[in-house]
Amino acid sequence: MGAVTTPKQDRSRATRQRLLESAVACLAEHGWAGSTVTVVAEHAGVSRGAAQHHFPTREDLFTGAVEYVAEERSAALRALPVQGRTAVVAALVDLYTGPLFRAALQLWVAASNEAQLRPRVTELEARVGRETHRIAVELLRADETRPGVRETVQGLLDMARGLGLANVLTDDTARRRRVVAQWARLLDEALG
Amino acid sequence: MGAVTTPKQDRSRATRQRLLESAVACLAEHGWAGSTVTVVAEHAGVSRGAAQHHFPTREDLFTGAVEYVAEERSAALRALPVQGRTAVVAALVDLYTGPLFRAALQLWVAASNEAQLRPRVTELEARVGRETHRIAVELLRADETRPGVRETVQGLLDMARGLGLANVLTDDTARRRRVVAQWARLLDEALG
Repeated sequence: MGAVTTPKQDRSRATRQRLLESAVACLAEHGWAGSTVTVVAEHAGVSRGAAQHHFPTREDLFTGAVEYVAEERSAALRALPVQGRTAVVAALVDLYTGPLFRAALQLWVAASNEAQLRPRVTELEARVGRETHRIAVELLRADETRPGVRETVQGLLDMARGLGLANVLTDDTARRRRVVAQWARLLDEALG
Repeated sequence: MGAVTTPKQDRSRATRQRLLESAVACLAEHGWAGSTVTVVAEHAGVSRGAAQHHFPTREDLFTGAVEYVAEERSAALRALPVQGRTAVVAALVDLYTGPLFRAALQLWVAASNEAQLRPRVTELEARVGRETHRIAVELLRADETRPGVRETVQGLLDMARGLGLANVLTDDTARRRRVVAQWARLLDEALG
């Protein structure tokens, strides 16, 4: 099922993929207000008609892009090699400092003011949050049957999100490295 | 100097104050794209001309509002009573979950895409960040001459920001309380 595709299906899939990547890039660069279907189609080198064939409405396109961002983030997390906790913490935090986080942040904030976006983004963020937590627990080899461990991991992901936000207007890399090194130590002690 | 004011000066100051508060409320509710000088003036019950007398441009109005937000946040922090570390952590986190944080977040994200806003918001956020850190160190009675203590407090404020972000689309209160209780324990141990 679906393993064999025609050249036409391949082209259609490639176009769709390019539109999603362009939608993420436009969101990160221009924000929600500056990201229309026309802008994204131009960025992707696709006609407006073709863009609307794949995504009938602006909400469809950007909800699709959020889904895409979410899947990319989860895949990047799952692809992390088995390594020490300090390295895992650094890698987890890194996921919140690139263009994927920037695009998600734009949508998140837009969804807080746009009734059409809000339920879709809320549902998706809850799903992504659960998945990210699950993967983090695994990578950190955290034993959630012990009291406080679940909240310890949740707090780490909240901190990672806050560090991502601190990196939006300025390059916060140097400060972030020192904070991450210190809290990785505290986390390692807490997880035992 | 300035202790004696005329009724006219008082009225002018009250109008200015109402405009700033309305600007924060509009930002939190409608986002940057939906927050024009006209919308704010209407919300404040002030004529558009009077609004423009106080704030000639849209950037002036919202930069003024960010300043106002920043001063309100610092004042709220400084007004915290002397209390145990767990209570201080909860109070610090609370500052990131109300309409003031929501408004600041809207401006922060808008500034990442608007060249006219960016330098002003960046400078202000750096200033507010330093001030918040200074007050947090004092409230937590943290000894920054000990290695790692500075980064421990910074990480806590990053986590508070991340928890604020998690509260924008949904009411995250119940989860946040558990995370804060656990991390207050870890912080208390780390600060000694």
